[in-house]
Amino acid sequence: MLVSKSSSSVVSVYPLSSYSFGTKEPKLEKDTSVADRLARMKVNYMKEGMRTSVEGILLVQEHNHPHILLLQIGNTFCKLPGGRLKPGENEIEGLKRKLSSKLGANLTGHQPNWQIGECVACWWRPNFETVMYPYCPPHITKPKECKKLFMVHLSEREYFAVPKNLKLLAVPLFELYDNVQRYGPVISTIPQQLSRFQFNMISP
Amino acid sequence: MLVSKSSSSVVSVYPLSSYSFGTKEPKLEKDTSVADRLARMKVNYMKEGMRTSVEGILLVQEHNHPHILLLQIGNTFCKLPGGRLKPGENEIEGLKRKLSSKLGANLTGHQPNWQIGECVACWWRPNFETVMYPYCPPHITKPKECKKLFMVHLSEREYFAVPKNLKLLAVPLFELYDNVQRYGPVISTIPQQLSRFQFNMISP
Repeated sequence: MLVSKSSSSVVSVYPLSSYSFGTKEPKLEKDTSVADRLARMKVNYMKEGMRTSVEGILLVQEHNHPHILLLQIGNTFCKLPGGRLKPGENEIEGLKRKLSSKLGANLTGHQPNWQIGECVACWWRPNFETVMYPYCPPHITKPKECKKLFMVHLSEREYFAVPKNLKLLAVPLFELYDNVQRYGPVISTIPQQLSRFQFNMISP
Repeated sequence: MLVSKSSSSVVSVYPLSSYSFGTKEPKLEKDTSVADRLARMKVNYMKEGMRTSVEGILLVQEHNHPHILLLQIGNTFCKLPGGRLKPGENEIEGLKRKLSSKLGANLTGHQPNWQIGECVACWWRPNFETVMYPYCPPHITKPKECKKLFMVHLSEREYFAVPKNLKLLAVPLFELYDNVQRYGPVISTIPQQLSRFQFNMISP
């Protein structure tokens, strides 16, 4: 393929078999329903203002195609590892904290060396509702949440500890693409957001 | 909005009223049907190998919301300004050539000073068919086309000459978003691909 790569960022993607996985104590969801979640968001907004959340895109390869690591809760709902920043917290440091909380071993000193890369997307929640947009809609002066997705550059070997109530899945880009029904608008358009990167697929 | 901007690229977006527009001779489409287009693509592939095409995302603002300049052919079909590279042509130089051909005045020396920015997306055509993907699908070793979208950073003032058979539209991101029926998969996900940028909206 004779495509000039001058303007592309190169991302090394290691095989899934490079990584090892264990379990740790469950990380229970703070809310048991969408209504509870939106109510808690409202309370927090009154106290702290707009919520900023950060999520990581962790890539592995299988059959020479990029896969994204997703956490599955129950039988259907999938999410990216990440979470809400503390008020005033730095985005990069906050994402590292959240990744360690979701996927790091409990032993201090055994945390993966999280390399946070490029921001690939930013989604806005205009109201205390589930719908988000990839822009702050006109006339919305007080959005309720800004969610940012970052590339996370994994090292060649890592150990991930997955909370016992969650499953860690490696989902291929071709499964996410055009699949808003299953993965929602944020995760299903990650393939488009990653398309500008040149993937350097490392063989096992 | 207290979002840290440390990791975002800032893009200045000038009001639509900063720019002036004229017309020039028609630029007729090379093909009169999709079947003709795919047949011509096949002939060219045999001669020259994979096609690389480049398209530009030109932003203006109205009502403090980003709009994208699209060329409308007939009553419904919209496309980004751009086109196919010559074999071996540099992507950036080729996009400048195509932008001048589509939107530049005919007088040499009156071309806009095209500032080609970041690659924001890359789409692959695996077969001589209309469908494209934001990745090269597994098992496809000889894709037929790679289409790259680039940000084009407009200056504060420009003159654009629009071919008489085309209309130049400024379409807001909120109109493109989630509107694959009207704009197709490539253009309708531009809002997601631009979401990582911080827009600096310049007032008229």
